[in-house]
Amino acid sequence: MQIIDGKQTAADIKLEIAAMVKKMVDEGCKRPHLAAILVGHDGGSETYVANKVKDCAAVGFESTLIRFEDNVTEKELLAKVQELNTNPDIDGFIVQLPLPSHINESKVIEAVSPEKDVDGFHPVNLGRMVLGMPAFVSATPAGIIELLDRYKIETSGKHCVVIGRSNIVGRPISILLSQKASPGNCTVTVCHSRTPDIGKITSQADILIAAIGSPGFVKADMVKEGAVVIDVGTTRLPSALTKSGFKLHGDVLYDEVAPKCSYITPVPGGVGPMTIVSLLKNTLLAGRKEIY
Amino acid sequence: MQIIDGKQTAADIKLEIAAMVKKMVDEGCKRPHLAAILVGHDGGSETYVANKVKDCAAVGFESTLIRFEDNVTEKELLAKVQELNTNPDIDGFIVQLPLPSHINESKVIEAVSPEKDVDGFHPVNLGRMVLGMPAFVSATPAGIIELLDRYKIETSGKHCVVIGRSNIVGRPISILLSQKASPGNCTVTVCHSRTPDIGKITSQADILIAAIGSPGFVKADMVKEGAVVIDVGTTRLPSALTKSGFKLHGDVLYDEVAPKCSYITPVPGGVGPMTIVSLLKNTLLAGRKEIY
Repeated sequence: MQIIDGKQTAADIKLEIAAMVKKMVDEGCKRPHLAAILVGHDGGSETYVANKVKDCAAVGFESTLIRFEDNVTEKELLAKVQELNTNPDIDGFIVQLPLPSHINESKVIEAVSPEKDVDGFHPVNLGRMVLGMPAFVSATPAGIIELLDRYKIETSGKHCVVIGRSNIVGRPISILLSQKASPGNCTVTVCHSRTPDIGKITSQADILIAAIGSPGFVKADMVKEGAVVIDVGTTRLPSALTKSGFKLHGDVLYDEVAPKCSYITPVPGGVGPMTIVSLLKNTLLAGRKEIY
Repeated sequence: MQIIDGKQTAADIKLEIAAMVKKMVDEGCKRPHLAAILVGHDGGSETYVANKVKDCAAVGFESTLIRFEDNVTEKELLAKVQELNTNPDIDGFIVQLPLPSHINESKVIEAVSPEKDVDGFHPVNLGRMVLGMPAFVSATPAGIIELLDRYKIETSGKHCVVIGRSNIVGRPISILLSQKASPGNCTVTVCHSRTPDIGKITSQADILIAAIGSPGFVKADMVKEGAVVIDVGTTRLPSALTKSGFKLHGDVLYDEVAPKCSYITPVPGGVGPMTIVSLLKNTLLAGRKEIY
């Protein structure tokens, strides 16, 4: 059994991005510039955005954090999005989700110019991805593909089972892995809350991707001997044993599943660290105008 | 075993559309207007477009056929697309594929305004469909959903296996059927040319959708007793027995598979007739501005 070390892989990729940025700057190009819009003071969102800004600095990107209070109107937010769309200094930007309930998230996502949509949430980017065209792919699925690629895990002809059909993880990773690509060419099954007898499906998987946000959902008897298991779950539960007062839990019951696997991602330190790195990669692509 | 009669269902839907058009016109609204661009003189394309124009007349739509010779330039074609995009009299239009090899099909598809893209080929419509937002869904998958719906075939919790991952059939129908919707909520597996031992997968299907264009690919031993079988294949092979000199062949070996099925679509007369009807439905939606 081999542990897929997402933390180390993410660190390697950050060094590669930093080297590319240095080369770009040496050649007289501008540094890639990421902007982030943060509405309100949700603890999780604050942490995510702070980490994104920190990582931008680490790889040599410029970054701009734009804050709004919870009572920002949809109109004000859309005006800021429009301003960022047309600001030539900004290569890519994100609107940290979730937004307050009085704001229509879909409307905001659709207002972001696809050319600057480094989160890959705009319908155009999703549609282009489905069609196999150049596109910004959302961070978590892109991170999973990167891990499979860097660990040279064979995917062609394998049966991949994805648990979860969310728009930002389950759905896109299921599409990517069934495409004529490498990694890709899997036979892919998508399971979800309405799937009866789910263990009968998951135990057929050569590659099992758990993305439902249900701690410890995947147990040993649901996993085939020798499977590759990718755990996307990151549920925060209170814990008396950690300094922060909480602990991250994956969707996989790691201790009993790991011994059966050929490869497995731990939580934390698996898929999680790849997510921010994927956003940095998209920002680099935006800065280099490689997608549009 | 019950035969799913696509021909009859399509005829029923045409009557429903015609009644709605009559009501719209009676209320003083304009008739929905579909335009079709046809490049060159490919026999298949000529027939398809002629049938689309004929069906428009049958339901009371206006239609406009725009022809170009094979040597039309990409620039000329894009200029016509732009003209149709901005012509307020045209509610929706299609560019009949395939296009000559000197023209970039993706570029033409992306030039069509999503609001008038009644073929549902634009990345925005595909992306919106994936996100579960209002969208023009391409004709064949929309037709399959309609058949499942009208025949009241239970899909929730069923295992649907799709053979084929094309952008216009296999991919979108696999997404639609796994969404939280009705019809939908299936566990969906996508198989394709790289799937080993495909019969082992297909024989688990409660609903089997064959969309690979390989005549007679699905044999009785690949199908579970009581399965619903949807045959999307329409391969034209020469035949001495028909007036036209050819015969349509499905992807399913009908005679040996049908006795095992609870429901099956024949070829011809199954999914095929639903395709044009779906285009008419999209044109009606466009005329009524129900998507955008």
